Amino acid sequence: MGEQVRFLLDESELPTHWYNIVADLPTPPPPPLHPGTREPVGPDDLAALFPPELIAQEVTGDRFVEIPEPVRDVYRQYRPSPLIRARRWERALGTPARIYYKYEGVSPAGSHKTNTSVPQVYYNSINGITKLTTETGAGQWGTALGYACALFGLECEVWQVGTSFDTKPQRRTLIEVFGAKVHRSPSRLTEFGKTLPEDHPGSLGIAISEAVEVAAQDDAIKYSLGSVLNHVLLHQTVIGEEALKQLALAGESGADLVIGCAGGGSNFAGLAFPFLREKLAGNQSPRILAVEPSSCPTLTRGEYRYDFGDAGGMTPLLKMYTLGHDFVPSPIHAGGLRYHAMAPLVSHVVNEGLIDAAALHQSECFEVAVDFARAEGIVAAPESSHALAQARREALAAKENGTEPVIVIGLSGHGLLELGAYDSYLAGHLEDDPLSDEALAAALANVPVV
Amino acid sequence: MGEQVRFLLDESELPTHWYNIVADLPTPPPPPLHPGTREPVGPDDLAALFPPELIAQEVTGDRFVEIPEPVRDVYRQYRPSPLIRARRWERALGTPARIYYKYEGVSPAGSHKTNTSVPQVYYNSINGITKLTTETGAGQWGTALGYACALFGLECEVWQVGTSFDTKPQRRTLIEVFGAKVHRSPSRLTEFGKTLPEDHPGSLGIAISEAVEVAAQDDAIKYSLGSVLNHVLLHQTVIGEEALKQLALAGESGADLVIGCAGGGSNFAGLAFPFLREKLAGNQSPRILAVEPSSCPTLTRGEYRYDFGDAGGMTPLLKMYTLGHDFVPSPIHAGGLRYHAMAPLVSHVVNEGLIDAAALHQSECFEVAVDFARAEGIVAAPESSHALAQARREALAAKENGTEPVIVIGLSGHGLLELGAYDSYLAGHLEDDPLSDEALAAALANVPVV
Repeated sequence: MGEQVRFLLDESELPTHWYNIVADLPTPPPPPLHPGTREPVGPDDLAALFPPELIAQEVTGDRFVEIPEPVRDVYRQYRPSPLIRARRWERALGTPARIYYKYEGVSPAGSHKTNTSVPQVYYNSINGITKLTTETGAGQWGTALGYACALFGLECEVWQVGTSFDTKPQRRTLIEVFGAKVHRSPSRLTEFGKTLPEDHPGSLGIAISEAVEVAAQDDAIKYSLGSVLNHVLLHQTVIGEEALKQLALAGESGADLVIGCAGGGSNFAGLAFPFLREKLAGNQSPRILAVEPSSCPTLTRGEYRYDFGDAGGMTPLLKMYTLGHDFVPSPIHAGGLRYHAMAPLVSHVVNEGLIDAAALHQSECFEVAVDFARAEGIVAAPESSHALAQARREALAAKENGTEPVIVIGLSGHGLLELGAYDSYLAGHLEDDPLSDEALAAALANVPVV
Repeated sequence: MGEQVRFLLDESELPTHWYNIVADLPTPPPPPLHPGTREPVGPDDLAALFPPELIAQEVTGDRFVEIPEPVRDVYRQYRPSPLIRARRWERALGTPARIYYKYEGVSPAGSHKTNTSVPQVYYNSINGITKLTTETGAGQWGTALGYACALFGLECEVWQVGTSFDTKPQRRTLIEVFGAKVHRSPSRLTEFGKTLPEDHPGSLGIAISEAVEVAAQDDAIKYSLGSVLNHVLLHQTVIGEEALKQLALAGESGADLVIGCAGGGSNFAGLAFPFLREKLAGNQSPRILAVEPSSCPTLTRGEYRYDFGDAGGMTPLLKMYTLGHDFVPSPIHAGGLRYHAMAPLVSHVVNEGLIDAAALHQSECFEVAVDFARAEGIVAAPESSHALAQARREALAAKENGTEPVIVIGLSGHGLLELGAYDSYLAGHLEDDPLSDEALAAALANVPVV
């Protein structure tokens, strides 16, 4: 019997609760503000968009929130997800580091996004909601919401960012296989969409505005967001809770380094927050690192200010690292990382110095992802490749310094619907497009003064 | 705790041996014949193409063949694969049948093909071979061989059937990500390819001829086949061995029906032969059913005769159900089922009446696959959808008859690189093209008289 590779948990060890980092933070995160009054928003302000259970989760201070049985019952289709020791990649790198990746690509949507789409659709379904609207960038969130709606019998309408819609027809088809409707954003179906030229490349902020506009018009329709908000991050903590158990199974006393890619922040928080809890409690002392693209460097070059979550200024104002709500990032291939801001909870812990951030060029990320695929057999999502690339830097540093860190990577999804991006890389056509100082200053100029 | 869904085996329960059905057959299968002399081929005749261990496995009568540790070590990256109870699909169908699917889509190549690519590359590597050539139809075999070659440091060159190359660039990219070279077949790189027009749609038989021609020219290059031959079927039996254990874990005393799709026959045999052993031993009494497309109905409408394995007539003559070695099937989406013949071992057990066969139209298969995806969250490969469609027929019959059969389906791979086919189906553009009597007669006319 050779060395163990996959650390699997039995279905009986599926987490029973989501973990809420708010309960353990040294300082409370700043509240969201109403876009009109600039006063803290109350639950009522969110009622047009979300069902009561999700609003309660958005504001709760409880440390743990029970996962409803119908949600756990869907999680069982693919969870617990595996934690895998990257021993072939370690050998290829010649590193003394022990590298583990928590692989969320096993989900029906191919990414971590189902962890929150399933509870969101469940709570809407028990409140008599018949249809959900949403945005999608890379397409993983639209896929995840479409899948969950199919399970609970809800209609689903997805506004897909224009460039993504144009270049990735397979993603649109996958969402349609699950039964949802897909529109190119900006569309002619919303007042906000009509203010923009039809061939506009789109952005997550624009697509959010469109989906919110449609949901706000009808009581039986709600809106569903795939990242950023507290309740979304809460649902993703099953990732980190499982990883903690699995790391122990692998015989490790803890992680020295926890690395996740960060776009809106939910994948990152899902892995990192349970580790941060253990760090704050003094049980482990991992360095925790969020990795973002140099084309959309929210945490590393944005400002920590109140800003809108969407381009149209319809959402509450959230205190977060932002590049400006109407910033349109360069069309890099990691569509899921092209968001102008960062989840308030992630922003808060970065601002408090509890976690670190780094930004990488996409060419380095694809180079590492190809090496990783040849060693481990998994083609990573372009988003996840950012975490891999940072892990390689750390693993090579360990080789240099003679240290043996335990590195835990969040491998948020597979890249099988992103092979066009890999083709560009292999053909030498991939370009890096780091954000310029001028573009950054121009985008920040439109952030409202609160 | 809800009902269990996934029946997982620990890494310690990974099979230690492959199973060889030849040891248990009531009658021995007819031998392959030399294409020139028409005499039974000996091991020497195969030495130009295969390493000695694979030739030994091709002709062995041993019941079990030990899996080398370096092969098991790669299997551990994704095996044991899950057996999943399709409870949501059962509910959607309203059937009293208990349906389980053995899911091979978890492999690095997204299909069962790595089960044989890994040992094939391993045995070549320990014999000093530096490069392998092969054909690929749907692309799953090329992906699997590319992956295995990356792991063991061999070069890999793949001839991809023309229509597949033209319509599925993502598949080519995936093979290239793993480091292999891909050519459109027919190519200008071989004498056989040059005899055909450059824009010929290609076929598996043509691509095999090209790959064999290149391998035969150089001692350091060997050829690798993804199906049909005895040693390939042998390697796939890990599927059935695991499924037997998992079915017991699920509390079932045995299967009533085992269903697999069959193109060359290796996926089908891999699942079915261990069940057939149990049936022959009187331990279970499943009906075992191979499902093929009505456009390429080898088992249901072909003749059981000696024929070539390739279009160019370079391979040994094999006794098998065949539509004729130069038959070019209609370009249906299940590229992996577009082979003119069927594995000699599968053909033999069909001819002996030990297993049954059925043929289905692709439109029914896609319709079922979409329903399956919305229930189970898995988008099946078009090949695997044939097994699902037959399973639905059986499950609905059970509902009609009030029986409660245990149905085990071989879900050979995912269809995430075949979403173009799903798009055609959803858009209503999918056409069925069952083989006509005239076309069948014309193709059979070219089968050599032995």
